[in-house]
Amino acid sequence: MTEPSDRTLSEPDEAIMEATYRALRKHGYADLTIKRIAAEYGKSTAAVHYHYDTKDELLAAFLDYLLDQFVDSIHDVATTDPEDRLELLLDELLVKPQENPDLSIALLEMRSQAPYKAAFSERFQQNDEYIRYMLKAVINHGIDEGVFDDVDADHVTRSLMTIVDGARTRAVVLDEVEALETARRTANEYVDAMLR
Amino acid sequence: MTEPSDRTLSEPDEAIMEATYRALRKHGYADLTIKRIAAEYGKSTAAVHYHYDTKDELLAAFLDYLLDQFVDSIHDVATTDPEDRLELLLDELLVKPQENPDLSIALLEMRSQAPYKAAFSERFQQNDEYIRYMLKAVINHGIDEGVFDDVDADHVTRSLMTIVDGARTRAVVLDEVEALETARRTANEYVDAMLR
Repeated sequence: MTEPSDRTLSEPDEAIMEATYRALRKHGYADLTIKRIAAEYGKSTAAVHYHYDTKDELLAAFLDYLLDQFVDSIHDVATTDPEDRLELLLDELLVKPQENPDLSIALLEMRSQAPYKAAFSERFQQNDEYIRYMLKAVINHGIDEGVFDDVDADHVTRSLMTIVDGARTRAVVLDEVEALETARRTANEYVDAMLR
Repeated sequence: MTEPSDRTLSEPDEAIMEATYRALRKHGYADLTIKRIAAEYGKSTAAVHYHYDTKDELLAAFLDYLLDQFVDSIHDVATTDPEDRLELLLDELLVKPQENPDLSIALLEMRSQAPYKAAFSERFQQNDEYIRYMLKAVINHGIDEGVFDDVDADHVTRSLMTIVDGARTRAVVLDEVEALETARRTANEYVDAMLR
């Protein structure tokens, strides 16, 4: 997997990504069109098509963009203390999405299309792999420093991502943003039980 | 909430439900049509429309049907021992769906439409409420009998459903049926940590 932050988006791409973000939040995935993205972009549909042939191609790029943003926010997590760092990663995954339920709705629609669209499937897999890599690194670091028990870090990481994905799904399907708060508590309980 | 098993489906409904089940597994939600359901039903589209006006109305009935089936399988769990019963409920939720990945794909599509379709949203909420009710009953039973610790049963139940929904989502989005197996282990670890 390439380190996503190594790629730099050119100026027009960044503006199209922001337009896509706004359009997705307004219209959801199914009702999203290049026309609606162009309206947010403030330019013609031809200007969007100059960069992307299809809506799904643009959305695949948008998934890359979201991962880039996540990676940036992780880089801003300055602490290297394993316990603090794990807490902050779980906050990024379970507290931050509470700010943006509209994006979560659109993302679940896109997730549900992964079995039909290879470009989406690929991004969601990469995204999951990257986040698991980050979680596993901090768990292994904690094991090395003797602050965490010597666990199966791969399994614990997959369990935490199961809790994260369950919360994301429940927040949307049950229209319950508190599902993320519940899961934050569940993640703490699980971490306590397994790592300490 | 009405006890779902009190309702009895009439003969033609049952056959349409089975036809819907087969059509959903073959075509997924987005590409499902009354015509395709009628083809599985072995009758005309008019025969389907005699019972249901729209595809979404039929699918809402199908979600009721799935809950009925789940309730039936729970009723078949003969043991009243809280520890065994909790194990068997978690097996129903996390082991049984491994048999049917195609249905899981269609269900995630329908879940992602809950924010747009009140009839779906209602069913998924009822379904979740019913399963949480079952899980909570067995946990409270175990607390009363002194085999489980005196925990916040409502929270533990929501945590277990978060793990279940996370596994369902991951199995589909990452095309990884093992996600359900992983989550079965996570659920055991969580139950061990919280209840024992």
